[in-house]
Amino acid sequence: MTIKVAVAGASGYAGGEILRLLCGHPRLRSGDLEIGALTAGGNAGASLGSQHPHLLPLADRVLQETTPEVLAGHDVVFLGLPHGTSGAIADALPPTTLIIDCGADHRLQNAQDWMDYYGSEHAGTWPYGLPELPGNREVLRDATRVAVPGCYPTISILSLRPAVAAGLVEPHVTVVAVSGTSGAGRAAKVDLLASEVIGSSRAYGVGGVHRHTPEIAQALSAAADLPVGVSFTPVLVPMSRGILATCTARTSASAAEVRAAYEKDYGDETFVHLLPEGVLPTTGSVLGSNAVQIAVTVDERAGTLVAVGAIDNLTKGTGGAAVQSMNLALGWDEAEGLSTVGVAP
Amino acid sequence: MTIKVAVAGASGYAGGEILRLLCGHPRLRSGDLEIGALTAGGNAGASLGSQHPHLLPLADRVLQETTPEVLAGHDVVFLGLPHGTSGAIADALPPTTLIIDCGADHRLQNAQDWMDYYGSEHAGTWPYGLPELPGNREVLRDATRVAVPGCYPTISILSLRPAVAAGLVEPHVTVVAVSGTSGAGRAAKVDLLASEVIGSSRAYGVGGVHRHTPEIAQALSAAADLPVGVSFTPVLVPMSRGILATCTARTSASAAEVRAAYEKDYGDETFVHLLPEGVLPTTGSVLGSNAVQIAVTVDERAGTLVAVGAIDNLTKGTGGAAVQSMNLALGWDEAEGLSTVGVAP
Amino acid sequence: MTIKVAVAGASGYAGGEILRLLCGHPRLRSGDLEIGALTAGGNAGASLGSQHPHLLPLADRVLQETTPEVLAGHDVVFLGLPHGTSGAIADALPPTTLIIDCGADHRLQNAQDWMDYYGSEHAGTWPYGLPELPGNREVLRDATRVAVPGCYPTISILSLRPAVAAGLVEPHVTVVAVSGTSGAGRAAKVDLLASEVIGSSRAYGVGGVHRHTPEIAQALSAAADLPVGVSFTPVLVPMSRGILATCTARTSASAAEVRAAYEKDYGDETFVHLLPEGVLPTTGSVLGSNAVQIAVTVDERAGTLVAVGAIDNLTKGTGGAAVQSMNLALGWDEAEGLSTVGVAP
Amino acid sequence: MTIKVAVAGASGYAGGEILRLLCGHPRLRSGDLEIGALTAGGNAGASLGSQHPHLLPLADRVLQETTPEVLAGHDVVFLGLPHGTSGAIADALPPTTLIIDCGADHRLQNAQDWMDYYGSEHAGTWPYGLPELPGNREVLRDATRVAVPGCYPTISILSLRPAVAAGLVEPHVTVVAVSGTSGAGRAAKVDLLASEVIGSSRAYGVGGVHRHTPEIAQALSAAADLPVGVSFTPVLVPMSRGILATCTARTSASAAEVRAAYEKDYGDETFVHLLPEGVLPTTGSVLGSNAVQIAVTVDERAGTLVAVGAIDNLTKGTGGAAVQSMNLALGWDEAEGLSTVGVAP
Repeated sequence: MTIKVAVAGASGYAGGEILRLLCGHPRLRSGDLEIGALTAGGNAGASLGSQHPHLLPLADRVLQETTPEVLAGHDVVFLGLPHGTSGAIADALPPTTLIIDCGADHRLQNAQDWMDYYGSEHAGTWPYGLPELPGNREVLRDATRVAVPGCYPTISILSLRPAVAAGLVEPHVTVVAVSGTSGAGRAAKVDLLASEVIGSSRAYGVGGVHRHTPEIAQALSAAADLPVGVSFTPVLVPMSRGILATCTARTSASAAEVRAAYEKDYGDETFVHLLPEGVLPTTGSVLGSNAVQIAVTVDERAGTLVAVGAIDNLTKGTGGAAVQSMNLALGWDEAEGLSTVGVAP
Repeated sequence: MTIKVAVAGASGYAGGEILRLLCGHPRLRSGDLEIGALTAGGNAGASLGSQHPHLLPLADRVLQETTPEVLAGHDVVFLGLPHGTSGAIADALPPTTLIIDCGADHRLQNAQDWMDYYGSEHAGTWPYGLPELPGNREVLRDATRVAVPGCYPTISILSLRPAVAAGLVEPHVTVVAVSGTSGAGRAAKVDLLASEVIGSSRAYGVGGVHRHTPEIAQALSAAADLPVGVSFTPVLVPMSRGILATCTARTSASAAEVRAAYEKDYGDETFVHLLPEGVLPTTGSVLGSNAVQIAVTVDERAGTLVAVGAIDNLTKGTGGAAVQSMNLALGWDEAEGLSTVGVAP
Repeated sequence: MTIKVAVAGASGYAGGEILRLLCGHPRLRSGDLEIGALTAGGNAGASLGSQHPHLLPLADRVLQETTPEVLAGHDVVFLGLPHGTSGAIADALPPTTLIIDCGADHRLQNAQDWMDYYGSEHAGTWPYGLPELPGNREVLRDATRVAVPGCYPTISILSLRPAVAAGLVEPHVTVVAVSGTSGAGRAAKVDLLASEVIGSSRAYGVGGVHRHTPEIAQALSAAADLPVGVSFTPVLVPMSRGILATCTARTSASAAEVRAAYEKDYGDETFVHLLPEGVLPTTGSVLGSNAVQIAVTVDERAGTLVAVGAIDNLTKGTGGAAVQSMNLALGWDEAEGLSTVGVAP
Repeated sequence: MTIKVAVAGASGYAGGEILRLLCGHPRLRSGDLEIGALTAGGNAGASLGSQHPHLLPLADRVLQETTPEVLAGHDVVFLGLPHGTSGAIADALPPTTLIIDCGADHRLQNAQDWMDYYGSEHAGTWPYGLPELPGNREVLRDATRVAVPGCYPTISILSLRPAVAAGLVEPHVTVVAVSGTSGAGRAAKVDLLASEVIGSSRAYGVGGVHRHTPEIAQALSAAADLPVGVSFTPVLVPMSRGILATCTARTSASAAEVRAAYEKDYGDETFVHLLPEGVLPTTGSVLGSNAVQIAVTVDERAGTLVAVGAIDNLTKGTGGAAVQSMNLALGWDEAEGLSTVGVAP
């Protein structure tokens, strides 16, 4: 049986990344996988090549409108849509269709959090596409709906969770995460113009107002089994891809205790790499890959745990997590079509 | 009387920036200031133009050896030298010579801090070239020795001090500061190659081992009149100039209380600009200028003060502070030859 | 008498650069110059600070609508407007007002060229704001209308003219000019997003269709006194400011003959610097300055003259040329408020 | 039978790229291919992970000395060594070992050209690893020695050859090629520091002195069957990977004639893509891939053919061409382990 895949929002960065990964997926070459409808909003009618000139094998594909009718008849539907729109699409597709939503709509468990941060009615909660959280892998294997985590939450949660879950830090964490611009999407905005970004860094969403904040708090609070306060500040820096999260929390644990907790949690993971002591992650070394690189240490003078994590926001932070979730839900090897080797330098 | 200025380490980035600013200083045009000896280490014998092609008016100047003999006979000597070397130079020059050291040697008050972080004997403490600290401006007006602050301390201290001094935060602060590469100096190192830096971000000196940590703690502890713990993490991002520091501390104060403290401290400052509420600093907007842009707010959910500050690490972070200190010590207007207008975009 | 200056299109990059230079102009400090109305199109009503956070001294100024009424009553009016719009504005202002147009409308002498490249009626020809062309400086001293040259033409013409005028090359030249993104203006377009630009280079306007082509041909043909063919290709590269033009033409002259021609033409110029043999220009070294750096040599194997020139497209390529023209027309020193020192690294 | 592969110069960029591609090669997973010795010069003794943190699966491999003894016993040996050193290594290995040299030593056919540009004795000529040249593919299938083309020659030759071979242009071409910094290698040099490169563009090797010039002339002259003059200027721009070559030559042919020649030559090629009319290549869209994107048109006003080509200098320009040549010489599908999909944005 050939699995037929559709991508809604194919002209955006999330959609483009999913297609990049699918083009290299061994199941495509073997015929187990087939790329069906590609849809868009304002770019419907254009060729995919005009939107994503790097996707040469699909250059002549024409983008269709994003409607349930166009998306029907596929086994897997990836959604790379503006938040607030995926619920209606999902409701119009059969419950057996595997829907993998790269948007925010179905990530939060608490409807009030959604209301506070997005100001609309909550569409509901789907299985969370972060297989590296305890228990999640099993849930995803049976899922027909998946909420792909936000890019900042992915690396923030993975960088802090072992310490939080083991009770090694106080239940208040600080995350300052630098990010490339592709995380902000492909809409034409003056403050994302190359002229404004090159040679300049800036924080945004300062003061806890970034919408990824409650998603980080949700996972860490679950890990700690008590409310964890999260101070989260994203910083835009002049690169296209990559997130480097510097995560701190007060601790009285030793570096060895902390390290042991991380080794235990991530020792068997394919994509999460705890770096040797003294080695620090770079976003360049995970570019285009699904790898997560984490370094953790304790600053004894300041009584502070410092964990630094790096991912490619478009791969492990979006499209890679989506493909990883698809692999699990289809019963394939989780790592098929995903690399741990970055494109560097 | 014409003030004769020498620059030691003129082929490095600090020396180049001082010369850039001196070239535009109105006292140079008026004849009150004269640029004398320019010295270097390995680049002695080369023309300045071969090292700094942007300094056109000085292109034909030949770099001399950095020796007390060459530096003698100047009224002002700027030192942009490797740490550990400025003490001996200073000792060999007359006490009346105004010596402005851009290196680290004379910044710390505690000899043990120096020993812990630099592993050598402490050269002594000089007046600290940050006029925006209470009382410092007066000290600098009478000084013949000035220790220019480190670039990270400058923005970290300015971003946090009003809150710390007013007792509005707990005495433990977290600073994550992204920086361009020029702060790492001009020595040829593989990890500073453009190929390694472009498209990649990385933290370094993680765990409190960066040498600017005790300098930040020193100023904040003095402000609080009690020991302030500092968790400091620098992050290298793909730009040449600029530091953006995201500074956090636990607080129960309101945003209004915090804001009032900053307004009080910085209301009269020429170079420190507290941005209007909702406006956030960018390093691009201070590029090449001596301006400091600071935004401060309180994240009430997380009970955390967040201050974000931006400077150009080579200007206000090094060469601009050096010129500002010179102006004060010579009895000139502190702002002469220094701009609050950045080169953007 | 105080000269009152208005800037139309103040929220764009040309307008912002003119204001950056005016903020540092010594005639502003002396009171000879005053900054009057600042106008905009879609951004009218906003504060200048919200558009150009680097222009701190003018941050609170409110942008007005671009109308003849608002611009009336000024001695100097700078226009940084979309092409096709400056003629009507100029017609509505007194003939004695000094109008300096940074747009393309009044650069071309041949109305058919305008029609071919812009597809509308030609607004007429104004004195060309490139004082370094023979005779132009005198014309500009008497002018009340100035057409600021295009950024690519400025560096292409200056890099090739001495050889073309001296008949040292065949009357067919090739220019490939890399440019930062600010030359494309500040309109929000997907292909100028940082994500699209960082890590990527691309040519555009290939095949002689870029609108700066006839402007280059016009000046070189005048210099040669015969039609000069121009193959011009602009290349967008990941930087914000700067143009580096590589200009070639077939020659049988020697390197010495060529060099002599350039030395003769540029020996007395303040802003045009012929670099020593073996030294090549970088755009970084002219950043923010009005300097032009040119290297010229002959490839004897290929029988080809190669001239490489660098400018900052926003300074000497736009705002600096505008201020230089203003200085001339007001009888001031041409170089006031303009630097030959770039902001590097 | 398992093919055992060694990589000499594994800590450099060429070696790292070969290893990146081998890590994703399907023959590695199937067991047909095995990665043997990895050698280095100054980095011998270090782990590969310390040099190339993006090559996670090989992180623990230890770099050995580059000696014939270490390289013996492998079926394939890739050489990523300084020029002048590969001849001796090759002589010490059996003639049946497939040696693929990424250096310049064996590219040129004319010993005098080598002497003129490299100043040493010529090591001899090997089959040229550009399968897209007529006849080369067949030669490479039987080869045990392969000279991988230079990065600039690869894209310059591919962009111009169809027009030159068809006699559609005058036998004098101009190439201005912008390049990322990785082409300059990984040696620590001040002028390749990120601080010097970011925000700045500069030409180098101006006047026909760049060593890739005779290599371009050699291929184009062979195609034309007469000497073709080549004016070649490389321009360093602020990106890590990618070359965009703008290639011009005088022509009286029509755009249609030119296009037909390119379609004929490249219609069956896997990696060379002639873009639709009006579409222009970007280096970002070929990043990390082995694809070549070419646009060609005729500027009728200037009587000039303009061809613009893009490659990733490390992939199709070095490591990808090396793997493509290996595939051919081993009788495998030329495209195995090589992608036509770039990593964008």
